[in-house]
Amino acid sequence: MVRISIIGAGSVAFSSKIIRDLCLTEDLWGSTVTLMDINEERLKIAYLFATRYCKEVKAELKFEATTDRKKALQDVDFVICTVKVGGYEPMEAERRIAERYGYYRGIGDRVSDYYGGIGAYHQLKFFLRLAREMEELCPDAWLIETANPVFEGTTLLSRETKVKVVGVCNGHLAYKQLVKALNLDVKEVEVEMAGFNHCIWLTRFLWRGEDAYPLIDEWIESKAEEYWRSREYLAGYPWNTEQLSPGAVDMYRLFGLFPIGDTVRSVSPWWHHIDFKTKQKWYGPSGGFDSEVGWSLYLKLREERLKKLTDLIRNPSASLVREFPPVPSEEQHVPIIDSIANDKKRVLQLNILNKGLIAGVPDDVVVEVPAVVDGRGIRGLPVGSLPKRLMLHVIMPRMRRMEQILQAFKEGDKTTLLLMLMEDPRTKSFEQAKALLEEILAQPWNVEAREHYR
Amino acid sequence: MVRISIIGAGSVAFSSKIIRDLCLTEDLWGSTVTLMDINEERLKIAYLFATRYCKEVKAELKFEATTDRKKALQDVDFVICTVKVGGYEPMEAERRIAERYGYYRGIGDRVSDYYGGIGAYHQLKFFLRLAREMEELCPDAWLIETANPVFEGTTLLSRETKVKVVGVCNGHLAYKQLVKALNLDVKEVEVEMAGFNHCIWLTRFLWRGEDAYPLIDEWIESKAEEYWRSREYLAGYPWNTEQLSPGAVDMYRLFGLFPIGDTVRSVSPWWHHIDFKTKQKWYGPSGGFDSEVGWSLYLKLREERLKKLTDLIRNPSASLVREFPPVPSEEQHVPIIDSIANDKKRVLQLNILNKGLIAGVPDDVVVEVPAVVDGRGIRGLPVGSLPKRLMLHVIMPRMRRMEQILQAFKEGDKTTLLLMLMEDPRTKSFEQAKALLEEILAQPWNVEAREHYR
Repeated sequence: MVRISIIGAGSVAFSSKIIRDLCLTEDLWGSTVTLMDINEERLKIAYLFATRYCKEVKAELKFEATTDRKKALQDVDFVICTVKVGGYEPMEAERRIAERYGYYRGIGDRVSDYYGGIGAYHQLKFFLRLAREMEELCPDAWLIETANPVFEGTTLLSRETKVKVVGVCNGHLAYKQLVKALNLDVKEVEVEMAGFNHCIWLTRFLWRGEDAYPLIDEWIESKAEEYWRSREYLAGYPWNTEQLSPGAVDMYRLFGLFPIGDTVRSVSPWWHHIDFKTKQKWYGPSGGFDSEVGWSLYLKLREERLKKLTDLIRNPSASLVREFPPVPSEEQHVPIIDSIANDKKRVLQLNILNKGLIAGVPDDVVVEVPAVVDGRGIRGLPVGSLPKRLMLHVIMPRMRRMEQILQAFKEGDKTTLLLMLMEDPRTKSFEQAKALLEEILAQPWNVEAREHYR
Repeated sequence: MVRISIIGAGSVAFSSKIIRDLCLTEDLWGSTVTLMDINEERLKIAYLFATRYCKEVKAELKFEATTDRKKALQDVDFVICTVKVGGYEPMEAERRIAERYGYYRGIGDRVSDYYGGIGAYHQLKFFLRLAREMEELCPDAWLIETANPVFEGTTLLSRETKVKVVGVCNGHLAYKQLVKALNLDVKEVEVEMAGFNHCIWLTRFLWRGEDAYPLIDEWIESKAEEYWRSREYLAGYPWNTEQLSPGAVDMYRLFGLFPIGDTVRSVSPWWHHIDFKTKQKWYGPSGGFDSEVGWSLYLKLREERLKKLTDLIRNPSASLVREFPPVPSEEQHVPIIDSIANDKKRVLQLNILNKGLIAGVPDDVVVEVPAVVDGRGIRGLPVGSLPKRLMLHVIMPRMRRMEQILQAFKEGDKTTLLLMLMEDPRTKSFEQAKALLEEILAQPWNVEAREHYR
């Protein structure tokens, strides 16, 4: 019996999964779950879902709802953070501004949803504030950080605060798409992935105990072209097809290990993303998750799903279980809680301080690695060395970008924001970057950021 | 009394300075100096100079000359390496090829003379061969490495061989130009510079014991504009004016410490070097050392100096001392030998393994720092932390470039050569970079490199 808080629980598409997982984990019954959000309307929906679902599956959990974050943090054991400060609109507006300056699909490593605007200012500020409150109100609690940017956020909190923080993502599950393409039984497969969040690589891949990388090579050699002509690829959602796209295969060829999940979106080389046509070549007809087509599709489906979910919850006679069968999601948040609270050993894919797990990465940088979770806490499994070419061309640059973002944030260093932009291959002049930065900082939602970065 | 070899002694413009310094260091009299070069004609000139100069200043040194490197290395105590494999012409030819592909002034961090062509292949291969021979023929000798690239070369040898290697450059002496501009007495000034070779920064600058950075700020504020309008700046040689150019001042503003010497050429930001006009704005009418004007001027003067020197040496009745007064050059090679051989403590500016000297740089990377040299050898002085912004935007990227060059060289990894080119802001497509790389590797002087990089 523990106390759990979900900060940002109004994101009901996400929190419904966590609530369902909690209800289905009998060993956590008797626990209290506090749903917290600043949006009362959305919080109410989440609370309605939680209490009704709980009742339908006859789970024994106590749910509370509050808009008061401090109240939600008081004496809890686990905090799940899923907050996106300001929502998606400012980010979309910043992208439109950036496009006017010649930055197709905006700035921020092409994957602007992770960063929440220039230098991730709003997200990092929120994370830090939350962690400071936790230090005071629940100093022994675990912070399960699932809001982006996970890499920057968890590294910042691990360095600056005393909070026990672990970063959680579901992107690594995309390895199953690879396994499926190879026509293997996922139960006979052993995988290990390592790197940074949204930058993880298949470091170990066994089928029936034998190296299965040759099966990938064979697939590329003899099946890939066919797959890229198939309806499954051509008409599939980008988040389902990117994992086996020509872009992913190219990254494997360039860097020596197969990229997994959001890695394909997030650290694919710049020359894959010059324009929509180029993106189509590498990531399929939609141009991938982060093209104007793929991303619009995602936002549209997201909205539709949310509406459907909200309508369902608002209809008191609808069966939630029929829509949400009592099967655990594959999210790792509740398993972490279950493993720590009930001392059940599990290996999960988590973001924790490196401390020697990946060779050549400093100890004070958070890495995403397999980790053993049990009553003793979270212990990462050493991964050893990554291929040198991958280190030099992806891992080191991605780490440096993280350090730049944190340095700019910590020191309020506007010059670093500018120098980051100067590294963008689309930047043609200092004046172009400077003007863009000034215009973004001049937006109404960036009043605080403008004060901060000098 | 020690045995010293100068490998590449036919570069008489350089070796004449070393020979003069040796002749003027009485405590080294009785030593044997072997001049080695594969070019017999140039070797003969160097030998003529050495024996005549020695006689004119009544020094007591024994000079030998040989084209046999192994003979030159047998049982010596100090080896000075100043070899440029293949000379300048292949580099110039590669630059012309690169310009056809849209790379103004060629590839190789804009400063193509340091790298000796793609990936510095020929230089690194020579360094490694020389060090292997030293391991066998003079395992206790010091290798004083002055041939470029010093950063990559000394790091490679420190990691891969047992040879005691120290990298030596004279670029740091440009701090005196700064001191002169500030109208200070160099004897009242204390400086410390640190970083990597051709990437060093004024980490400490005292005048009469007080921080003198405010004097730099004052100069920029009230004197710089006037200097940039002066004949001294407008008509000066770029190697004399770059140190106080608008480009250097901009680097100071961006990165927080003043760049010293070749640093200004070598790690100034890409947007200073877009075209000749831009280069003129930042580095003066000549466009700086590495523009078509500045570099041509350098090559022309170099040739004229060499011709004059050769004519002088060939004229048996000319007085060498009149042309080369018996005053030590400011090169550090002979002082290193004198300090080690005769246990005379000196602080010099040297390139040695980091081992904690600069915070945040791995131990196995060579850094350029102040170092104490005496009978015990060479011990670097800890420098501490560099400003975070400088680390993130200059030091880390420069270090990564070094690692890329060494990884490509060690593993014969052509993909890394290509990925390095893809990071060049002038690269517009993979095809452009690939075609350029193939054309460069197809040149007759790159037959071996083409075999090596796969």
